[in-house]
Amino acid sequence: MQDTHISLAHGNGGRYMRELIREIFVRHLGNPLLDADADAVPVALGEGEIMLTTDAFTVQPLEFPGGNIGSLAVHGIVNDLAVTGATPVYLTLSAIIEEGLPIAQLERIIVALGEAARCADVRVVAGDTKVVRRGEAAGLYLSGCGVGLRARQHCLTLDAIRPGDQVLVSGPIGDHGIAVLLAREEFGLMGQVESDCASVLPLTRALLAVPGLRFMRDPTRGGLATVLHEISQASGLGLSLDQAAVPVRPAVQSVCEMLGYDPLYLACEGRVVAVVDAAYAAPALAALRALPQGQQAALIGNATAAHARVALTTELGGERHLQELEDDPLPRIC
Amino acid sequence: MQDTHISLAHGNGGRYMRELIREIFVRHLGNPLLDADADAVPVALGEGEIMLTTDAFTVQPLEFPGGNIGSLAVHGIVNDLAVTGATPVYLTLSAIIEEGLPIAQLERIIVALGEAARCADVRVVAGDTKVVRRGEAAGLYLSGCGVGLRARQHCLTLDAIRPGDQVLVSGPIGDHGIAVLLAREEFGLMGQVESDCASVLPLTRALLAVPGLRFMRDPTRGGLATVLHEISQASGLGLSLDQAAVPVRPAVQSVCEMLGYDPLYLACEGRVVAVVDAAYAAPALAALRALPQGQQAALIGNATAAHARVALTTELGGERHLQELEDDPLPRIC
Repeated sequence: MQDTHISLAHGNGGRYMRELIREIFVRHLGNPLLDADADAVPVALGEGEIMLTTDAFTVQPLEFPGGNIGSLAVHGIVNDLAVTGATPVYLTLSAIIEEGLPIAQLERIIVALGEAARCADVRVVAGDTKVVRRGEAAGLYLSGCGVGLRARQHCLTLDAIRPGDQVLVSGPIGDHGIAVLLAREEFGLMGQVESDCASVLPLTRALLAVPGLRFMRDPTRGGLATVLHEISQASGLGLSLDQAAVPVRPAVQSVCEMLGYDPLYLACEGRVVAVVDAAYAAPALAALRALPQGQQAALIGNATAAHARVALTTELGGERHLQELEDDPLPRIC
Repeated sequence: MQDTHISLAHGNGGRYMRELIREIFVRHLGNPLLDADADAVPVALGEGEIMLTTDAFTVQPLEFPGGNIGSLAVHGIVNDLAVTGATPVYLTLSAIIEEGLPIAQLERIIVALGEAARCADVRVVAGDTKVVRRGEAAGLYLSGCGVGLRARQHCLTLDAIRPGDQVLVSGPIGDHGIAVLLAREEFGLMGQVESDCASVLPLTRALLAVPGLRFMRDPTRGGLATVLHEISQASGLGLSLDQAAVPVRPAVQSVCEMLGYDPLYLACEGRVVAVVDAAYAAPALAALRALPQGQQAALIGNATAAHARVALTTELGGERHLQELEDDPLPRIC
């Protein structure tokens, strides 16, 4: 491309937009199904339940240690399918681009997006681009939709959860939130924290192979605490969380202590929370720990008969209600 | 809802976000498949080819005569499926909302979105909301994905177009572009132009029932001229357009003359351009004109053996190349 920066003409439906789509999007995301000239594309799907999901991404900054908005978008959508027991197959992608965005930066983002898609074995089959005025869209927003397939036996529902079921997390929490925070440089902190931004498919596949799996969810916005509240409210059961058992990297813990954040509310982008029949908690934990991404997996709590509340046993042995998130500790982390 | 305006907390994944989703989105878009608590939802599809499309909407202002960004989003996605010969079945929706947007305005938009979805018989089955800082997102951006089904015999391709085929448009062009322009009040013009924003499904169904239909497309961003260029470039054939035959409302023509716009490049949001075997052009035109939306349908040109160029016969009888759109006459019309 001759231009170095995005202009409004790149969004007008004419020649410049066609060039942008061809040189950046199709070049890095191309596959036989992605027809940039089509209004809609035909896709084939194999046997199973068709699963749909959608997500928008407005993370700031656009690039951070461990990923960027492009890889985050793919992993976010892939993970929303994966935790329902599905295998992601197709993605659609829409980009709202700010006038003035360096095209080299856009290309880095789309390259990472393409790599993440290949890594999760999903294909981007449809897309759309819009360009908005300087000052809007903070560089780039991405939205996407995911289509997956789920084997009937992998249908997981919150209704299946029973008191006594064990709660697992696949790895340390809060890495993504803190990595993005440090990348903002607002606090003048330098850190070694990388986002955990990754596909959770290896983790969900390992869990699906264990009997007694009840439910899975990825703790993104609002973190582990929010997922536990969602599970508790939707199932009508209580959850009891053992704070000392929750894995948190020392660097994440330090930043949290310095700035007054609670890692329980910080976003992860490559972790899974799973609820498992207590009889199968040990093999489920072993299955996670056998994976590179799951070496720090831990049993962190259990479901209880207490009605729809989340109790936290603190590291000092006290017990308190875990509050639902109200104020946003870290806006714009996904 | 107690709040009157959107705050960042409405996007944080916690209690405020759940309230917003329940009170505005689920209340107006609810259907048995829309599970606001799920990461991904299972959907059933009948027989046929599965068609996917995606589109983002950044129109300014958010509300204009004849529609708003909500109805526009549904119609835009529905129409992208309809022109491929598909019947839209499911939509996903992601909303990027600016902090400070009046909740009453958001609700008007989502009500219109729900009405447009019911009118086109599609269901919103998955959604996502993000909230961004004041000054970003111009109030609201919407993105969505559409899933449709296409009967095998309705597969339309550009390859099918032959020299001599006739080109039809289903109604007057430029209404949407001019309606949005006048709604901006930048030029101090008051006008009576309403957007043509509507589902084109009745039109595409009527055309699919006529033998000899080669191809359809909706002339949105870049207008009729851009669609003709796309058809010409993708098919490798020439197109000849008779300017005098192109329907343009007098009010649209007047504004164009005053401000120096060419209606051929202005967006429509409820029109179809169709290419039809010359032998069936008359019944195709009659099928369109039998519909309320198609009363001003017209035969406007034909395919030629000239290689990939669009020729315009002007109202004075001269002939010139119709240039491809480069500068954006009206940014942010969809």
